[in-house]
Parts: sequence; C-alpha cells; structure tokens
Amino acid sequence: ERLGFDEVIYGKEKTINQLESIIKLYLEKDLRFFCTGLDNLKIDTLTKQFGSNVTFCRKSGTAKNFEYPPCKFKKTVGIITAGSSDAKVAYEAHETLKVLGVAAKTYIDVGVAGIHRFFKYSEDLKKHTVLIVIAGMEGALSSVVGGLFPQPIIAVPTSVGYGTALGGFTPLFAMLTSCANGITVVNIDNGFGAAMAAFRIINCLPEAQNDR
Amino acid sequence: ERLGFDEVIYGKEKTINQLESIIKLYLEKDLRFFCTGLDNLKIDTLTKQFGSNVTFCRKSGTAKNFEYPPCKFKKTVGIITAGSSDAKVAYEAHETLKVLGVAAKTYIDVGVAGIHRFFKYSEDLKKHTVLIVIAGMEGALSSVVGGLFPQPIIAVPTSVGYGTALGGFTPLFAMLTSCANGITVVNIDNGFGAAMAAFRIINCLPEAQNDR
Amino acid sequence: ERLGFDEVIYGKEKTINQLESIIKLYLEKDLRFFCTGLDNLKIDTLTKQFGSNVTFCRKSGTAKNFEYPPCKFKKTVGIITAGSSDAKVAYEAHETLKVLGVAAKTYIDVGVAGIHRFFKYSEDLKKHTVLIVIAGMEGALSSVVGGLFPQPIIAVPTSVGYGTALGGFTPLFAMLTSCANGITVVNIDNGFGAAMAAFRIINCLPEAQNDR
Amino acid sequence: ERLGFDEVIYGKEKTINQLESIIKLYLEKDLRFFCTGLDNLKIDTLTKQFGSNVTFCRKSGTAKNFEYPPCKFKKTVGIITAGSSDAKVAYEAHETLKVLGVAAKTYIDVGVAGIHRFFKYSEDLKKHTVLIVIAGMEGALSSVVGGLFPQPIIAVPTSVGYGTALGGFTPLFAMLTSCANGITVVNIDNGFGAAMAAFRIINCLPEAQNDR
Amino acid sequence: ERLGFDEVIYGKEKTINQLESIIKLYLEKDLRFFCTGLDNLKIDTLTKQFGSNVTFCRKSGTAKNFEYPPCKFKKTVGIITAGSSDAKVAYEAHETLKVLGVAAKTYIDVGVAGIHRFFKYSEDLKKHTVLIVIAGMEGALSSVVGGLFPQPIIAVPTSVGYGTALGGFTPLFAMLTSCANGITVVNIDNGFGAAMAAFRIINCLPEAQNDR
Amino acid sequence: ERLGFDEVIYGKEKTINQLESIIKLYLEKDLRFFCTGLDNLKIDTLTKQFGSNVTFCRKSGTAKNFEYPPCKFKKTVGIITAGSSDAKVAYEAHETLKVLGVAAKTYIDVGVAGIHRFFKYSEDLKKHTVLIVIAGMEGALSSVVGGLFPQPIIAVPTSVGYGTALGGFTPLFAMLTSCANGITVVNIDNGFGAAMAAFRIINCLPEAQNDR
Amino acid sequence: ERLGFDEVIYGKEKTINQLESIIKLYLEKDLRFFCTGLDNLKIDTLTKQFGSNVTFCRKSGTAKNFEYPPCKFKKTVGIITAGSSDAKVAYEAHETLKVLGVAAKTYIDVGVAGIHRFFKYSEDLKKHTVLIVIAGMEGALSSVVGGLFPQPIIAVPTSVGYGTALGGFTPLFAMLTSCANGITVVNIDNGFGAAMAAFRIINCLPEAQNDR
Amino acid sequence: ERLGFDEVIYGKEKTINQLESIIKLYLEKDLRFFCTGLDNLKIDTLTKQFGSNVTFCRKSGTAKNFEYPPCKFKKTVGIITAGSSDAKVAYEAHETLKVLGVAAKTYIDVGVAGIHRFFKYSEDLKKHTVLIVIAGMEGALSSVVGGLFPQPIIAVPTSVGYGTALGGFTPLFAMLTSCANGITVVNIDNGFGAAMAAFRIINCLPEAQNDR
Ligand SMILES: Nc1ncnc2c1ncn2[C@@H]1O[C@H](COP(=O)(O)O)[C@@H](O)[C@H]1O
Ligand SMILES: Nc1ncnc2c1ncn2[C@@H]1O[C@H](COP(=O)(O)O)[C@@H](O)[C@H]1O
Ligand SMILES: Nc1ncnc2c1ncn2[C@@H]1O[C@H](COP(=O)(O)O)[C@@H](O)[C@H]1O
Ligand SMILES: Nc1ncnc2c1ncn2[C@@H]1O[C@H](COP(=O)(O)O)[C@@H](O)[C@H]1O
Ligand SMILES: [Mg+2]
Ligand SMILES: [Mg+2]
Ligand SMILES: [Mg+2]
Ligand SMILES: [Mg+2]
Ligand SMILES: [Mg+2]
Ligand SMILES: [Mg+2]
Ligand SMILES: [Mg+2]
Ligand SMILES: [Mg+2]
Repeated sequence: ERLGFDEVIYGKEKTINQLESIIKLYLEKDLRFFCTGLDNLKIDTLTKQFGSNVTFCRKSGTAKNFEYPPCKFKKTVGIITAGSSDAKVAYEAHETLKVLGVAAKTYIDVGVAGIHRFFKYSEDLKKHTVLIVIAGMEGALSSVVGGLFPQPIIAVPTSVGYGTALGGFTPLFAMLTSCANGITVVNIDNGFGAAMAAFRIINCLPEAQNDR
Repeated sequence: ERLGFDEVIYGKEKTINQLESIIKLYLEKDLRFFCTGLDNLKIDTLTKQFGSNVTFCRKSGTAKNFEYPPCKFKKTVGIITAGSSDAKVAYEAHETLKVLGVAAKTYIDVGVAGIHRFFKYSEDLKKHTVLIVIAGMEGALSSVVGGLFPQPIIAVPTSVGYGTALGGFTPLFAMLTSCANGITVVNIDNGFGAAMAAFRIINCLPEAQNDR
Repeated sequence: ERLGFDEVIYGKEKTINQLESIIKLYLEKDLRFFCTGLDNLKIDTLTKQFGSNVTFCRKSGTAKNFEYPPCKFKKTVGIITAGSSDAKVAYEAHETLKVLGVAAKTYIDVGVAGIHRFFKYSEDLKKHTVLIVIAGMEGALSSVVGGLFPQPIIAVPTSVGYGTALGGFTPLFAMLTSCANGITVVNIDNGFGAAMAAFRIINCLPEAQNDR
Repeated sequence: ERLGFDEVIYGKEKTINQLESIIKLYLEKDLRFFCTGLDNLKIDTLTKQFGSNVTFCRKSGTAKNFEYPPCKFKKTVGIITAGSSDAKVAYEAHETLKVLGVAAKTYIDVGVAGIHRFFKYSEDLKKHTVLIVIAGMEGALSSVVGGLFPQPIIAVPTSVGYGTALGGFTPLFAMLTSCANGITVVNIDNGFGAAMAAFRIINCLPEAQNDR
Repeated sequence: ERLGFDEVIYGKEKTINQLESIIKLYLEKDLRFFCTGLDNLKIDTLTKQFGSNVTFCRKSGTAKNFEYPPCKFKKTVGIITAGSSDAKVAYEAHETLKVLGVAAKTYIDVGVAGIHRFFKYSEDLKKHTVLIVIAGMEGALSSVVGGLFPQPIIAVPTSVGYGTALGGFTPLFAMLTSCANGITVVNIDNGFGAAMAAFRIINCLPEAQNDR
Repeated sequence: ERLGFDEVIYGKEKTINQLESIIKLYLEKDLRFFCTGLDNLKIDTLTKQFGSNVTFCRKSGTAKNFEYPPCKFKKTVGIITAGSSDAKVAYEAHETLKVLGVAAKTYIDVGVAGIHRFFKYSEDLKKHTVLIVIAGMEGALSSVVGGLFPQPIIAVPTSVGYGTALGGFTPLFAMLTSCANGITVVNIDNGFGAAMAAFRIINCLPEAQNDR
Repeated sequence: ERLGFDEVIYGKEKTINQLESIIKLYLEKDLRFFCTGLDNLKIDTLTKQFGSNVTFCRKSGTAKNFEYPPCKFKKTVGIITAGSSDAKVAYEAHETLKVLGVAAKTYIDVGVAGIHRFFKYSEDLKKHTVLIVIAGMEGALSSVVGGLFPQPIIAVPTSVGYGTALGGFTPLFAMLTSCANGITVVNIDNGFGAAMAAFRIINCLPEAQNDR
Repeated sequence: ERLGFDEVIYGKEKTINQLESIIKLYLEKDLRFFCTGLDNLKIDTLTKQFGSNVTFCRKSGTAKNFEYPPCKFKKTVGIITAGSSDAKVAYEAHETLKVLGVAAKTYIDVGVAGIHRFFKYSEDLKKHTVLIVIAGMEGALSSVVGGLFPQPIIAVPTSVGYGTALGGFTPLFAMLTSCANGITVVNIDNGFGAAMAAFRIINCLPEAQNDR
C-alpha cells in the first residue's frame, strides 16, 4: 500500500496468455496492479478483453487498473533522454512516478553530439530534486549531466544501437565508469527501476513525510 | 569548494613515483586533496616523505592534507558489508563521507548465509537516511536489504571472490538485476563513488541546505 | 530400465517435424520415452497426432507414453522457486521426479526481496531430504536457503530477467559463487537435470535400496 | 559445531598480514578454524609464527588448529582427478572431508585421453557413495564418469590449462553442459565446496545420523 | 576445377531472394556450384523454381547442379557424431566429401555418456585414414577419440545445447583445449570446412595423386 | 624511407634482453629505428648500454637513433586527452608525429565532467587539420569533440580505469558506438597507430606533396 | 546544411510505424532527410505511402527526399569489399558519399583467399584519396590493403559469417589489431559512418574548400 | 613408444619446484620425457641441477633427456610465422617435430602487411607436405596461405599483441572464421599441438609406414 499499487507485473517476457491469466486473477482478487513492458501487439490484444477495467498507455508500454494518486510530494524528478529512440524508457519512468504520486518532467532527445541543444535546458534541469538520465549507444550524456549538476543522478542505459553498443552493455559500463562522480546506475532499459530509485530518494525527504 | 577538497587523486593505478609528484605539486599549490586506493606499501613509502603534511589512513587506503570538516548534516548514512573482506571498500566510503561532512556508521560482515546475523541490526539500519550495501561473491545482500528497507540504497559490488565471481562482475550484475526494486549500483570496489552518490542525496535534502 | 523410461527427448531445440519422427519411431519400437522442453504450440500440434498414445503436461512442458511408476522411496524432494516466472522449470523437475518414482513438493514464488514470505515455509522445507532451489534474475534465493538448511541443495538458475540477467548467467555465476557452502549447480533452466541429480542422491540412500 | 570447526578462512586472496591477524584473533578467542587456499610461501611464513598451535598441510594448502574428528560415517567419498596438476584441489577436498569426519579416497591422474587407465579403477569407484570428479582443460572426465556410475557426482572444474581453457571456464561450462545426466557442479578450483556438498549428502543418510 | 565445382554458396545467412538470384546467375553462366546451409523451407521454395536443374539434399541441407564425380581416392574418411542432433553437420561433411570424390562413412549418435556404444565401432574406425569428430554440448567425444586413435582428427563443435553450451563455444573451447594431443578444430557447425580439411590431407597422399 | 625510419620496434611486450639484441642488431646494420612502449625501468637499463647512440624519451616511452626530420607539412594535428592519466599515450602520438615530420600540439586533461574546461580550448582546436582524441574510463570526450568539430577525428581508447572500464574496452566500444558521426577508432592505448593514421591523412593532402 | 541534408534517420531498429511517423513529420516540416538501414519489407511498405515524395534505393537500403547534390570535390573514395555478402554495407557507404557530394567507386568481392583477384585492381585503387575497406569473417583484407597502400584507410567490419565470426566482432578486433599501421575502424556494418569519416578527410583538403 | 618419448611435461604453468620433482621422478624411473613451455629463468635454474642428464633448448623453451631419433619420414613440414615475436612458438613446433623424427623448415617473420616478403618464399613452401602457420595480432597470414596453397594447413594463433588482440583470441577466431577453406586450428601458442597434428598426418601416409 505504501506504493499505491499491490502488485507489479513485468510484461515484457510474459506471453499474452500468461498476461491474461494474471490480469484476470488480479481483477478477481480486486488487487491494484501496475504492468510494464507491453508492446503494441500485447496492448491491442489485452484491450479487447480488459479495455473496460484496465487503462493501457501505449507510449510507456504500461497498464493499470486504478486511478493516478494525487501528487504527494513537492519535489520533482527530471527525466532526460539522449536520443528519441530512448523515449519509451523515459515514459515508463514517468508513468511509474505518476503512479507513485511523484511529479516529473520529461526532456526527450537532448543529445550530446550537439551539446548546445543540451545547454538550453540547463535552467530547467536545475530545479528538479532528482535527475534520471537515459541514454543508449555510448551513454556519454550521463557524464556531461553528472559534471554539471549536483543533484542525485540515476543513469539508465538503453539497448538502442547495434554492434559495439552490445545491446546496452556499452552505455551500462560507460555510465558505471563515468568520470563524473556519484552517478548511480540501474539495469538496461529499466525505466521502472530508475523511477523506484528516485521514489526512494523523494520519499526519504523530511517534508515529504509531512506532506502526505 | 562545495566538497571540502579541491582535488581527488585516484591512487590505485598510479605508481609511487607518480603519486609523489602529484602530492608534491598539490602541496606546493596549497590545494586540499583527498587520495583513495592506497595500499600499505604506498602508504609506507609516502609517509616517509610527506608524513608531516599528509594524514594517511591504512584501513581505508586514503590520504588527505586537511582537517575533517565539522559534520554538516543531521542525516546519516549506514554502510553495510556482507563479509569482512569487503571492509576496505566500506572504510573508503566512510572516510569519504567524513571528508564531505556527513556522519556515517559502518556494519562489517553482516552476511546473508547466516541471515539471523543480519536481522539483529535491523533497528539500527532503519535510522539511516541512506544505505550503502557492499558485497562481493554473489552480492545477495543487496536484494535482502532492498526488500526490507524503504530508504535509498546504493549497492557496491566488490572484487572479493574467485572463478565465477568474475572479479566483481557477478555481484555487479546480480545487484543490477536484483528482484528488490529501486536499488542503484556503482562500479566494482568504488566506495568513493558510493559515498559521493550518498552525498548527492543527503545534500539535496532541504534541511541540509539550511544547516550548512 | 533403472530409470523407468528408455529414452529422454530434449524438445526445446527440436522442430515439430523432428519431434514427430522421433515420437513415431519410439512408439513403433515400443520404447518408453520422456520428453521435456515443449511449448504450448508444440503440445497443441503433437496432441492432434499422438493424443491417444502420449500424455502431455502443459505446465511442465513434458510428454510421456507410460504410466507414472509407484513412488519407490520414502524420502522426498522440496522444489522452491524465487518467482512465479520460474514455475515451469520447477514443474519440469517435479514431473521428472514423479516419472522416477520420487515424491516431491513444489513451492512457487517464495521470493527473497520479501524474505518473510520465505520464512513461513521453513518448517515444511526442513522435512525434505533434498532441496532444489530455482531462481532467475540475481539468484539470491539459493544463498539464503543454503545458509538456513543443512540438506543437499541443487540450485537451478533460470533465464528469467533481461539485460544484466545475462539470459541466466548472472544467477548461474551467483549460485556457483554463493557464500553459503556446499551448494551445487546445474545448467540454466535445467529442471530435468536437477531432478536427475536429486534422484542420484535419493537413490543412494540405503533404505531406498531396500524399499524398491 | 555441526561441522567440527567454528570458522573457515579462505586464504588465497588474503595477504600474509591479513592471515596473521585473523589467525591470532581466532587463537585468542579459542575458536577452531579451518583455512584453505594457502601456497608454500604463506605456509612457510605462518609456520614460523604459529607452528606450535596450528597444523599446516602443504599438499592441500590448508591449516587447522584442532585434531581430526573420528570418522563419523560408514559411507565414503571417491575423489578422482583427470590430471596430476589437479591434485591440489583433490587434496583440499580430501582434507576438508577428514575435518568433517568423512572417509575418502583420492585417485589422481585417472585421465580420459587414455581411457583404459580409467577403467582399471572401475571396481573401486563403484564402492563410494559419492564421487567428486576434478578436471581442468576440457573437463571431459565428468561426462565419462557420469555415464558409467549411478552415484551422486559433484564435478569441480580447475583452472589448469591455458588459452581456450579460459582459466577454468571451459571445463566449468563443459561440466554444466555434460551429456551425462544429473551431474552437479561447484565453482572453479573449489575443492572445499565439493567436499561440503558431499558432506551434505553423506550427512542426510539415515544411518549416518545414527552413527554419530 | 581441382575441387570438382566452380563456386561454393553458403546458404544459411542468405535470404531466399538472394539465393534465387545467385543460383540463376550461376546456371546462366554454366558454373558448377555447391550450396550448403539450406533449411527445409529454403529447399521447398527453391525446388519449385530450380528442381529440374539443381539437386537438393534435405538431410545435409545442400544443393548442387552437377553429378557426383567418381571416387578418386582409395583412402576414406570416418565421420562420427556424439548425438543424433549433430547429424546434419555430419551429412554436410559427407556430402562435401562425395562432391570432392572422397569416400566416407558416417557414424551417428556414438555418444560418450554411454561409452560402450562407442567401443563397438572401434574396429571400423581404425580403418579410416582421417576421422571427423562432431559433437555439441561439452564436446567430450573428441578427447576420447583422440586418445584412442592415431589418425589425423578434425573436430567440429556444434551449436546443439543451451545455456552453458554457449551456442557451440563450449565444445569449441573444449576441443581446442583437449588433453588428447594433435586434434585440430574448425568453426562451429562447419561440416563443409571439416570435409575440406580432410580433403587437403587425403589429397596430399602420394598414391592419391597417382590414382586420379 | 617514406616514413623517416626503417624499422619500428614495439617495446611493451618485449623483455629487456629481447630489446637489447634487436637494438644491437639495428645499430650494427645501421638501420634507423623508432621504438615505442618503453617503461622507466627499460629506459634506465637500456640507457646504460646504448645511451650514446640512442635517444630515449621518458614521457612518451620511446627511443630512436636518428634526428627528428625537419617538419615537412604545413598542416598540424591536435592531440587531446580527457584525463592526466592518458598523457603517456598522447606523448607517444606526439613523438611519432615529430618523427614523421608532422607538427602537433598536445592538450592534456581537457575533461568532460567539467565541460567548461573543454570549451576554453575551442578556438585552438579549430585550427588543426586532424584531431586525435584520447580518453579512458567511459570515453565520452570523443562524442563531444565529434559533435563540435568538422575535422577528421581519430579516437584512442586508453586502459585507464578499473572494473567496468574493462581495461579499455568500455571507451573502445563507446567510441565505436559514438552518436557523433564519422569518428574513427584505433586499438586501446595505441598512440603510435593514431599518429600513423593522422600521417596518412596529412600526407594525402596535395600541398603536402609539394612541400616536401 | 553543410552536409546536404537536415536529418539522418537510422532505420534498422525502427518499426515501420515509427518510420512512417518520422517521415511524415519531416515531409511536413519540409526537412531534407537521409534514411539508412532499410530492408526490402520496409521499403515495399513505405514506397506505397511515400513513393511520390521519397526515393528509395534497395541495394543500399536507403531513402531520401531530395536530389543528389552536384559532386563538390575532385578527390574520390575507393570502396572495397572482401566478399559479395558485404555489398550492402558498401552501397550504403557509396550512397552516403553521393548524398554528401563526394564521388566514389565500389569494388565488390575483391577477396583475400584468392589474392590475385585483389592485385588486378591495384592500379585503380592507387588513384583514390581515401580507401574504405569492408570485410566480414576474419577481416584480413584490411591488413593486406593497409600494407600495400599509403592512403587513409577506414575499415568496416561486417556481421557476415557465423560461429567464431562473433557477429562481426572478429573482423572488428582483427582490424583494430592489424599489423598494417595507421588503419582506422568504425562500428560493425557501419557503411554510413565510414562514409562520414571519409567525408571529414576529403572535406579538410584545401582545394576542396576552394572547389565548392 | 610410438612417439619417441614416454611422457610430455607442460612446463609453463608449473613452478620450478614442481618441475624439479617431476624431472627427478622421470630420471629415476628412466622415462624419456619431452618438456615444453620453459622460460629462461626456469632453464637457468634447472640446468644447474639437471644439466648433465637433460638437454635444454632456449629458443624453443623445451627440454628432453634423450637423443633426437633419426628422421623417419620423407615428407616435411613448413613452419611459417607472421612476425618475429611469434618465433618461440615456431621453434617449439620445430623441436617437437624433430623429436618425433619429422624434418621441418622454419620461416620467421614472413608477414602479411608487406605481402611481397611472403611471395618470395612461395616456391619453397610448395614443397612441404604440411604447413603450420603461426600468427598473432589479427592472424591474417593463415587466410593468405590457405588461399594460395593446397596442402593441409594447421594454424596456430599466438598471444602476441595487446588490447583488441585479446591475448590470442582475435587471431584464434580469425583463423577459425577464415575465408580460405579447410584450414584447421589449435589452441593459442600451442606449437606442440600443431606439431602433433602434423605428425598425425605425416604418419598416416603409406610410404611413411614403410620407411620406418
Ligand atoms: N520495467 C521493469 N523492469 C524491471 N523490473 C520490473 C519492471 N517492471 C516490473 N518489474 C519487477 O518485476 C516484478 C514482477 O515480476 P513478475 O512477478 O515476474 O511479473 C516486480 O516485482 C518488479 O520488481
Ligand atoms: N576510489 C575511487 N574510485 C573511483 N574513482 C575515484 C576514486 N577516487 C577518486 N576517483 C576519481 O578519480 C578522479 C581522479 O583521477 P586522477 O586524476 O587520474 O587521479 C577523481 O576526480 C575522481 O573522480
Ligand atoms: N605503440 C604501438 N602500438 C601498436 N603497435 C605498434 C606500436 N609501436 C609499434 N607498433 C607496431 O609493431 C610493429 C613491430 O612489431 P615487432 O616487430 O614485434 O616489434 C611495427 O611494425 C608497428 O606496426
Ligand atoms: N547506418 C548507420 N549506422 C550508424 N548510425 C547511423 C546510421 N545511419 C544513421 N545513423 C546515426 O543515427 C542517427 C539517427 O538516429 P535516430 O534519431 O535514432 O534515427 C543519426 O544522427 C546518425 O548519427
Ligand atoms: Mg537524435
Ligand atoms: Mg564472514
Ligand atoms: Mg514474485
Ligand atoms: Mg596426466
Ligand atoms: Mg543420443
Ligand atoms: Mg583530471
Ligand atoms: Mg566471394
Ligand atoms: Mg615484423
């Protein structure tokens, strides 16, 4: 209950059949669930069966059977992606935070190769209490952000790229090795996990406890 | 200056010759430096030359040429290790936090195989604002801690172990894959980085800003 | 004959065509076979052709053309999984044991992140002669079980998870590196192999020999 | 106390300094310890300081500060190595079993390339309740043993070999992938772990409990 | 011309479209081609279009547009597989040798786990001038054959197996590391390459040159 | 002769004995040689024996037995390093270019975490015809440089860093995957190779040919 | 505008849906785009919708919505492939150069196993200012070319091959390790990147600037 | 006895102590042994003790306690290395062949980058019945040799090189993937194994049997 939902379903590796039985079960048991990792095909199929009880979100690949809670915290999270291909991971993080009652803002395709694009968001980014930095390919964005901002930074490597991108292991290792100090990292494509980590931080702030 | 020192020296990969010239340079330039990753041999040799100007700490493998700052924050960090071989990484984190003006407490050899040993620290661990969990071998401790505590958790894999421990990559991957949600991870043996990440969190707390 | 079947077929990498010819051959030769690694599609197709001679089990992904033997041993095996996604591997182990005449009990989704869930099974688990521990992601369950129970423990890593789960190599290495002593490990997703290893133990017990 | 010693020390990665302080501590606390992974240099140095209180064994690389317990079990363990370079791992397993009160017999350099050498031990090997098979390079011995004998088999890959032996990962993977069913595996060079696994089996036999 | 064909086509990675244009081209140019790596689907499709000019062989996955040459050499090649899943690689080697005018005999599923099955072929295998040993999983067969027979041995690892079989890299490394001396190895699943290597040997024999 | 030296010696993997005989041989044969990859110990030892005939350079780890040629080209190369630990690779590149008659300028410790430090060199860097970018850890510098400058860029990953730096493979893969287009890469720590690649470019410029 | 297009779309990892919306967007915004990495299926589908506004090229897998610019440079690029399977990468490089206003010539299937085939192109290859060498499997072609020609050489490893070709990592590492000095390398299959690197070189030539 | 020696000792991984006891044992037992993998330090130390009974060869790193047998075969082996750093592996192969009674000729530093150097040996190389090709770095030499010569070819990758040479795995994989057909490969640096493989071929030639 602390989290606003009772169960999390990780949908990427589950078949449509498996998802159907789990969702059916949770609906029967009247459990609030939050499901991540759904592609368009799964959402299309599941919408037919559960469209009236479950809300699906295509751009984040998520589903839930409850209303967003009211925003419980004053503090906010900034979610930044290097490229536009990293967007789905960002939306998964954003959706997770909304479900947890945390306000967030998403900045897509902020890049590094064209670093000027990045600088125009500087003032905005300073205002967030926690920054989630999402990047595939070589993951250089987290080093630049980490060098410029003092906030807690959670880096998410993505599987965007090919060959030497190693399915996300190159940005993962680059982020863990970053010359910018105090950056922390979660699993490849794990927008959900990054949001949970941000929630742990926001949630430990004293005024946070008061505001609830 | 925000951090209490001007320069950080990563001493593990530097030769004694290299360390001597850097330290000499920084002393001449009157820069406050904090050095990590020193083994006993390096400390013995450097003490002869710089013993009067530089303070060395054997158990954390660090050196510095300035006094600890007063503790600037009310919030504290709990540093937990799975085994006693992980202690040096814990002390590096602890020393870094002291240098940053953050109070911490270290719990060595809390284990997982004998999980009862872990439970007796439960009440203590609850009181810290941030938890740093340090474990080599299979890194299971972070999953257990992550499942039991709601705080921000920074996991540090260590290179303790052999064969399938993969020099720290097994606990690294285990921690990134952990079934406990919202755990974040830093590089293998990187006690310094974990402390910096904890500092970023402590430092973003509102009362923190007031207290300085 | 010692094992109750004449041939084992590993069905996961075989095409439906290949399976059809092997099954046809074995039926003609009147050989008792046990087949593992079947998905729903394979079972659907093969049922049409062989449904009257072969028994298929969906949840374990297995097939056989003979009756279960009577239970030959007093000793039992406990089969524990960390998550619900690991269930199919557990059922494969369970079905294999039944086919070998060994009684077993399966405990699904016993977890580690919520360690209390695990403790409520403690009394039950103590009664089994051998424990099979099945876990994907970071495989931490085997360390906890190994630290609490004195029995022979066979750990099975599963390919559940993504990114740094490395398709099962992370729990594999974590289990082999476990800080709990005397845990043994079989190949990723190899529920069949774990059951065979348990059978080798149960079968070497003296009263076992008498009971047959 | 169940195991006959209070503490195990893994000596391979510890410096002589670290070993000295741990041994001193355990002697003061009057704890029975068993230490593995010692090379000749460590044994030479530690013998000078602790020679009167601690017994060192060069060929297994172990040390202990207590007498062997009487043999507590009727059942025995057979320990087989493929080559003579694997001997130290075998002796570590043997010594561990003696310390646990289990009788064992060691068969060194039983080979696979000259398979006839292996066959002359067949009758002997049949008599043991558990077999530990130790092999480096390509690890083929465990498949041959697993195919010929029905007992529980614990395979130990060793780091013997070069290049494509991958420091023991080639025999590790070969053993886990073995076409002989029901073989279980422990970490590279882990003679201690194999003995502990054998002990878990021997110890769960009913007459074992009576005999103690 | 030395080889009996003008061009070799590696069909596994080519699309049906690509294969169609290459075959069409070679037929127009009147070039003798030998194609390997065809699955049933490709053979079905290509047979419709080229069935009158090209001979397809399902069990070896090959195609050619010319007659077998007469057998040109007295010496023969023995082709042995560990399991029945390795058969297609064996048939590819066999077909390649026939196309090169070399007589061969194939021994499928000779195993290692049941080593007695292997021994019954001993007399037969002695008669061949070159042995090709094909094995997936842990590849132990090549060590046993290499230890028993003095002939040139070409080992072919196959991608049969899962998890720690590493898609054929485990038998590859096991074969390269084999404790039996003088074994040589080709790429994973490369039956064609093994046959070419055998041909290089048979072809350098003096009486071979005379016989042509 | 095109290159100004007759032989290159790669000194890192050679023993002092091997280096002595090669140098002796080349001096006798009157060949101009350029040697790279020398550490201080090798330079100390070799200086004693060859100090009068051979010039050693400590900071680049090189040696040669000939004078620098006059600078043959108008175009210059800019050599940039991310950290100060990357300096030796930069000096190896610089020395190689001087030996090839190409003028270069070296910019050490230009960083990425403190990106402002980088910007102050912008005007300078624009003037060079080719840029060599040298970085260890996560290698992010090459992406930033590649995004800002239109020149040919040769990136050199270094082995600086630990754990997830993977001995230089993390910056290697990061550079190859860089989101900045048209960056090319050479082997880890290969300052010599980067200089040779820059030389190939400078040398193909038309006025270059005239100027010689 | 320097490059002749406003946006590059990397099409290989994008779904047809994603490509449709990006192309629609860019057409609406009147942006000149160049898209790479399209397979036949994507081209078929997109042609139906955008055939009148966008030009698709099957053999290079590219698309663009603008005319080729006039050739802006006197200097040319030679593009060489080892095998015919590497052709698509070569055509992607060629198409990219045309779009950048650079003239190029492509030499397909120049081989290394039959090195004489290579020598007949020698005179032709000498005339190009930059050489792009594209090879899969073991990538040996770049060493041969690098040893024979003094020009700048950009090597592109391809994912052609199986097993030990490691999806392109074997030629990648072979090219980076090449015994021929001064070769530079780009990511696996990255014809676009190689062309961009060649453009950076051609573009920095002085007469080039004049000619525009 | 077939091989001219009774035992082979692999000396690289053995300590001087271990070598001393094995040599002592074999001398006592009057066994003919052949030892490989000795460095200069080992040879210096062992010469003092066994210099009168054992012959050491520095350039091949071998030792033996028997005379070379007379050359038993008419056929010869050509041993070719790419660089001069590969020489020791070549001499190990050469020495092994001499000990087996096979005549061989060694061609050092035949290169690939300067392919003309290679061509001047063409006539010579044609005369050998078997070719052993030894190369580190990218291993391209075996593809060139394989494309030009019809004999059996045994390729030996060496650990010469750094970074992306992967300690010999890059040439290993390059050789296994070679576009030249019918090349076979042995373990990294395994000159002994290559010689044994050549011996298996020479030994199976009919006139060979007669000549003995
Ligand atoms: N996007 C995600 N990435 C990683 N883990 C997730 C994600 N979404 C949910 N999870 C985890 O997956 C668990 C559910 O797994 P399962 O029971 O197999 O559906 C939850 O408890 C979460 O810890
Ligand atoms: N223990 C440590 N682990 C990882 N990085 C460190 C550590 N201590 C210092 N550093 C980093 O290393 C940098 C100094 O590197 P260097 O200039 O090579 O000494 C500092 O800026 C820190 O970011
Ligand atoms: N720093 C360097 N890094 C990589 N390769 C080098 C370096 N210096 C020299 N080389 C190469 O090494 C070759 C000499 O190798 P060797 O004959 O073994 O000394 C030269 O031809 C160069 O190609
Ligand atoms: N064939 C290619 N290989 C690698 N990168 C490419 C290729 N084509 C385009 N790109 C890069 O991909 C970027 C576009 O990525 P995206 O915005 O995800 O479509 C471009 O800016 C290029 O840097
Ligand atoms: Mg973009
Ligand atoms: Mg402990
Ligand atoms: Mg669960
Ligand atoms: Mg032996
Ligand atoms: Mg079989
Ligand atoms: Mg710096
Ligand atoms: Mg071709
Ligand atoms: Mg050379």
